[in-house]
Amino acid sequence: MTAPIEFYFEFSSPYGYLAAERIDDVAARHGRDVVWKAFLLGAVFKLEGTQPLTQYPRKGEYSRHDFARSARLNGIEFNMPANFPIAAIATSRAFWWLDATDHRMAKEFARAAYRAFFVEGRDIAKAELCADLAAALGADRQALLSGIETPEIKAKLRNETDDAIHKRGVFGSPFMFVDGEPFWGADRLDMMERWMATGGW
Amino acid sequence: MTAPIEFYFEFSSPYGYLAAERIDDVAARHGRDVVWKAFLLGAVFKLEGTQPLTQYPRKGEYSRHDFARSARLNGIEFNMPANFPIAAIATSRAFWWLDATDHRMAKEFARAAYRAFFVEGRDIAKAELCADLAAALGADRQALLSGIETPEIKAKLRNETDDAIHKRGVFGSPFMFVDGEPFWGADRLDMMERWMATGGW
Repeated sequence: MTAPIEFYFEFSSPYGYLAAERIDDVAARHGRDVVWKAFLLGAVFKLEGTQPLTQYPRKGEYSRHDFARSARLNGIEFNMPANFPIAAIATSRAFWWLDATDHRMAKEFARAAYRAFFVEGRDIAKAELCADLAAALGADRQALLSGIETPEIKAKLRNETDDAIHKRGVFGSPFMFVDGEPFWGADRLDMMERWMATGGW
Repeated sequence: MTAPIEFYFEFSSPYGYLAAERIDDVAARHGRDVVWKAFLLGAVFKLEGTQPLTQYPRKGEYSRHDFARSARLNGIEFNMPANFPIAAIATSRAFWWLDATDHRMAKEFARAAYRAFFVEGRDIAKAELCADLAAALGADRQALLSGIETPEIKAKLRNETDDAIHKRGVFGSPFMFVDGEPFWGADRLDMMERWMATGGW
């Protein structure tokens, strides 16, 4: 087994959702695992001089069209949430709280939260909904609600976000690394797959 | 013959160059012609709240890496110019001056100018160099130098740029339309090709 793909994602990112639906399958075809890393994209906007995609006038309109088009191309259910973007702080903390004891359950939670938001339009920024989604996967609802309020989990999300931005150069979602090689965007999964198949070029 | 692809490009855009090297072949595989349309991307930055890719700290570093990586993937020669970006006003006017009488020569000029900039690092913003490149294709050097200073050609570039931004929603380079369907970016040529092959989805 070669090194895992590192997968950075923001819960409020439509392209993050589209990549989340595909990335483990893409990786498996090349004998790789995926390490999922939730981070807060909002932290990068001021540093980078950017803003959420949908807030640009022309790029925003194009993006809304392309989210749905890219979802259809990949057979992924997608409905643009009416309330967008959201500040998915509790969601990201819940991911890391679960991840501390069970990577697999954390991934399942991430996929469930993404679908709750980008298919059903539910407000996954709410801790109560995060707890419900995690409980459905077997997690302890009350333990999660307490856990995401601890200094340790708050620091974990802050540190992961800082590392992503300051150490790895992450500026968007999704953002993947294959043996250190960076790939930005759900529309680069094919290029990333070719990179794994060929060993790079 | 179905409707031609509309291809909007900015001469100072590395991804515009990468698309320019491929787009006529991609179109020909689907029985289509390509209408090339030079425009000035600089006009959109203030309206959209964006800036040239390489001026973002993290996205800029990633982009410089990706220009070269994407070029290698497609077998295209590429050297990042030391003087970048440039204000390719004379270049774009030269394109439209040639296009008024000879679409084919205008395309050849665009490809030659792109290569002069992104392979040889020459300053294609200079009218004299544009005239040299066009003369090598058979154009009248002096007529071009006079032509690009006429009110008609200046207005033509201004109008094409305004139309691109205000009527078509173009906000980046390259930007393509297939039967009205928009595709942004050199890395969307594959998706665009799939759209033509399937009739859309």
